[in-house]
Amino acid sequence: MAASRFDVVGIGNAMVDVLAQADDAFLHRQHLVKGSMTLVDAARAEAIYAEMGPGIEMSGGSAGNTLAGLASLGGRGAYIGKVSDDELGRVFAHDMRAQGVRFDTTPLTKGAATARCLVLVTPDGQRTMSTFLGACVELGPEDVEASLIGEAEVTYLEGYLFDPPRAKLAFAKAAELAHARGRKVALSLSDPFCVARYRAEFRDLLARHVDILFANEAEICELFETKDFHTAARAVEGHCEIAALTRGAKGSVVMSKGATHTIAPAPIARLIDTTGAGDLYASGFLYGFTQGKPLDQCGWLGSLCASEVISHFGARPETPLKTLLAGLASPR
Amino acid sequence: MAASRFDVVGIGNAMVDVLAQADDAFLHRQHLVKGSMTLVDAARAEAIYAEMGPGIEMSGGSAGNTLAGLASLGGRGAYIGKVSDDELGRVFAHDMRAQGVRFDTTPLTKGAATARCLVLVTPDGQRTMSTFLGACVELGPEDVEASLIGEAEVTYLEGYLFDPPRAKLAFAKAAELAHARGRKVALSLSDPFCVARYRAEFRDLLARHVDILFANEAEICELFETKDFHTAARAVEGHCEIAALTRGAKGSVVMSKGATHTIAPAPIARLIDTTGAGDLYASGFLYGFTQGKPLDQCGWLGSLCASEVISHFGARPETPLKTLLAGLASPR
Repeated sequence: MAASRFDVVGIGNAMVDVLAQADDAFLHRQHLVKGSMTLVDAARAEAIYAEMGPGIEMSGGSAGNTLAGLASLGGRGAYIGKVSDDELGRVFAHDMRAQGVRFDTTPLTKGAATARCLVLVTPDGQRTMSTFLGACVELGPEDVEASLIGEAEVTYLEGYLFDPPRAKLAFAKAAELAHARGRKVALSLSDPFCVARYRAEFRDLLARHVDILFANEAEICELFETKDFHTAARAVEGHCEIAALTRGAKGSVVMSKGATHTIAPAPIARLIDTTGAGDLYASGFLYGFTQGKPLDQCGWLGSLCASEVISHFGARPETPLKTLLAGLASPR
Repeated sequence: MAASRFDVVGIGNAMVDVLAQADDAFLHRQHLVKGSMTLVDAARAEAIYAEMGPGIEMSGGSAGNTLAGLASLGGRGAYIGKVSDDELGRVFAHDMRAQGVRFDTTPLTKGAATARCLVLVTPDGQRTMSTFLGACVELGPEDVEASLIGEAEVTYLEGYLFDPPRAKLAFAKAAELAHARGRKVALSLSDPFCVARYRAEFRDLLARHVDILFANEAEICELFETKDFHTAARAVEGHCEIAALTRGAKGSVVMSKGATHTIAPAPIARLIDTTGAGDLYASGFLYGFTQGKPLDQCGWLGSLCASEVISHFGARPETPLKTLLAGLASPR
């Protein structure tokens, strides 16, 4: 296989997060389901925003966060996603490039604004998201640069891409290009409601396209229509080369070729905001994977990165993740 | 004196902060002086931004932060400042109103963009700021609503208002209106370089208009052209009714009518980012003052609010400050 120019190329919905604290009563009044991601139109986004508390704006997007984390570890990343040519779009592009991620998808010059995600963080550290997709709906196969995919060891796709109509075409094109070049395809299931919306398509994808699957407990259970994690975990075996299943405070399980690795969670000083926990787990895992580390170490790197991001507000690392590697020791 | 509708009305440069971590070498390469605020034009702001790391966007502005803090304590605040009718301007307005601060200065509909401040935080927790004033240069006396000033117990002015040309006219108008209605006028000196730029005008203001002065050690020393804090503190006596002088880790000193109150700093778990320390000291002090508390308690409230804001990134409180009051006890 040819040498790679990138460890990972991520494709996702490019957006800016607006984070604010909220209590359970606020979620209730706004008919929002705690822990979920709900798609909203511009008017509903404005209505929620008008009622929300003071916010903090930070670049986000699931795969965007994963690539930012990968670069923060020292990995070589590229990103494909659609912003608009507006202030928030420029913020997103700046933040990717400043983190060392290659990002040059052509921005939208007219039409919808850059996507934003209203992230409400409750006192228990859970996040509830309302996403206005904006310019993301214009992402299509024409944005998938064949040379970029061909030169990346792993093509990483977020499940949320199934929401904007043309992005799934981009998704399929990228997966085919990657496999044609002997590269790996990774998929994150993103959100249990997203899985429920596209269950059949995700299962088909898993069978045909996905080498590495990332999912949390709720998502994998939703995919296989069971309430029991172990049943779901058994069901995923054989569907893909590697399944990395995160279990919150219980750590994670990495399954591959009949072997199961149980990974402890990394210790955290305080849980502030779980936004980005899954995204950053994928950063650590894929960094380890593309460095040729054994799977249990990949899982532990995932735990370590997730623990950093949940110890503060926001879905991107505050501490350069490279510095965490210095103190790295597998807890066994 | 008539009953007040507001405890404090603040007038300042309305802006959005873009916070990023940086090391000393970065400041050196960019010719920035650590701890200072430098005014930059749009091109220079773009050039620094292009070299900066990933950012976090948060509403800021010195008096804006003070009013947000006052409202977070439960105080009744209003704010006058000029944003543009753009995305960041809407973010600023949202954050003020969401915090419970009345804000309805007419935004600029054409011309400059909303002001932004590039805040570089070094590992020692110091912040170095580059400010593009944008729409702030259009703030003028026509934006000072007489009824608002007349109905606020204290009119609070930031020294930075002397940078945009017409804002000092707004400043003088507000001070005169306040005194005509028997209200108090407070001034924050903002920054030692700002004091150096307008020393004569600030000394004249102090003599004629200012009842309550906020300054840190570097600013008060710069105002009275001395290197010795005690010399500067003696010099300020008699120039205004109250002088609240902050001294960083040494706490603060409140002087009034020949009496000097020495205030301990509030304990902090960790120093992350000093941005907003002075602004939030003023929030606490003015909340206490407008609640009729004795001056040493006003100073202690200032210390408490400053300690919250320096324990995390950003210049506005993360914890509702009202909750800090519950555990309040003067440390003597």
